[in-house]
Amino acid sequence: MAYELHYWPTIQGRGEFVRLALEAAGAPYIDVARGDEAAGQGVPALMRQLKDPKAVQPPFAPPFLKDGAVVIGQTAVILHYVALEWKLVGRSEQSRTWTQQIQLTIADMVNEAHDTHHPIGIDLYYEDQKPEALRRAQAFCTTRMPKYLQWFEQIVARNPAGTRFLVGGKMSYADLSLFQLIEGLRYAFPKAAASALARTPLIVDLHDRVAEVPRVAAYLASPRRIPFNEQGLFRCYPELDLVT
Amino acid sequence: MAYELHYWPTIQGRGEFVRLALEAAGAPYIDVARGDEAAGQGVPALMRQLKDPKAVQPPFAPPFLKDGAVVIGQTAVILHYVALEWKLVGRSEQSRTWTQQIQLTIADMVNEAHDTHHPIGIDLYYEDQKPEALRRAQAFCTTRMPKYLQWFEQIVARNPAGTRFLVGGKMSYADLSLFQLIEGLRYAFPKAAASALARTPLIVDLHDRVAEVPRVAAYLASPRRIPFNEQGLFRCYPELDLVT
Repeated sequence: MAYELHYWPTIQGRGEFVRLALEAAGAPYIDVARGDEAAGQGVPALMRQLKDPKAVQPPFAPPFLKDGAVVIGQTAVILHYVALEWKLVGRSEQSRTWTQQIQLTIADMVNEAHDTHHPIGIDLYYEDQKPEALRRAQAFCTTRMPKYLQWFEQIVARNPAGTRFLVGGKMSYADLSLFQLIEGLRYAFPKAAASALARTPLIVDLHDRVAEVPRVAAYLASPRRIPFNEQGLFRCYPELDLVT
Repeated sequence: MAYELHYWPTIQGRGEFVRLALEAAGAPYIDVARGDEAAGQGVPALMRQLKDPKAVQPPFAPPFLKDGAVVIGQTAVILHYVALEWKLVGRSEQSRTWTQQIQLTIADMVNEAHDTHHPIGIDLYYEDQKPEALRRAQAFCTTRMPKYLQWFEQIVARNPAGTRFLVGGKMSYADLSLFQLIEGLRYAFPKAAASALARTPLIVDLHDRVAEVPRVAAYLASPRRIPFNEQGLFRCYPELDLVT
């Protein structure tokens, strides 16, 4: 049975980490909120599921994944859950734990990238927090982004199985997420990302390797891949792309 | 063999979620950075481990836990890892997944609580971002805090095994973390937390139930429990405690 992925239909956002994993695995899924309302899909279907008063394990927010009767929220938990069946993670508990640790650090960096345009609150518009955004972006571009990217670089460099992927010798969901993170940084902060990535050649190679995986390449070229835009996590506001 | 917990010695911070779990389980551990430098412990020992150039699975930041040769970072992953052995989570994959999902949502709320006093950047002092902090705290106290607390309340209310805990009929690490979250909110935002918690009686009861668990009560009364202070995640700045 196909998974039902519930996420906002017009942005990549956090849902994109799940879409990428399902696409790379060739796992059948329905992107519910992008479906036809007349067929019982669309955003109303997402909202019905999110607000279902009978749900005993209600998700806090999209993305969430429905697998039959099981509903799972939180991006990293969804990935942890689907990865074992779809061979996007090693089988050992230690391998799963390490992959999850990397994923949560990617999530931390994604949060910080998001907060560059929303430092005051997600319920306000960017236009209502521009001076604050400028200060926050300064700290992100000059300090936090290089620090995180160096950590990922170090992990690849020290991987006992070689420098092709983050964990072991095969692609995991963490590699897909790192690919997406680099895509997002390059979109939102083209100059700052280029500067930081010039010092992390291994993860740039990893990014390119992921992009060439046939199922990933097919997905990226398809209409299923929503282009980046200024409603998502990664937004291109040139005034926030700061290089020292 | 005792775990080695590596975390900053003068704050509760994110390390407190791990300390609480280990204390509640009766698991032997060394709080390394709080030990004696002359005995090879203290902050230098934490820094040596964090910067170890030979580490193949280096943590990004404290807290991290050393279990023999295994080193694990990210609070939620540490809890997921230790919980199975110490019976702080159900044994089924579904139970572990749901508990982790709740934990990550607690972590999201903790991040937002932290960002009330550091909306611009963690490398700056609070004193250098006070106007921004005021705006961020407004959104947190009036919108985000009640929304998160209602979600936890709903989970307890809908728990098929009864309303004593978040997951099933036994205490899990998520209950300990929710206890700690409520403690922190009450310290940092006494008026706003009282207002929001007045509408969530089940999680207030849960908090009190956790506080009475003998090992938890003993820990809280011991010198091992560091008092809240203005260097941690939860800081008492009365100007940020906003009620509408």
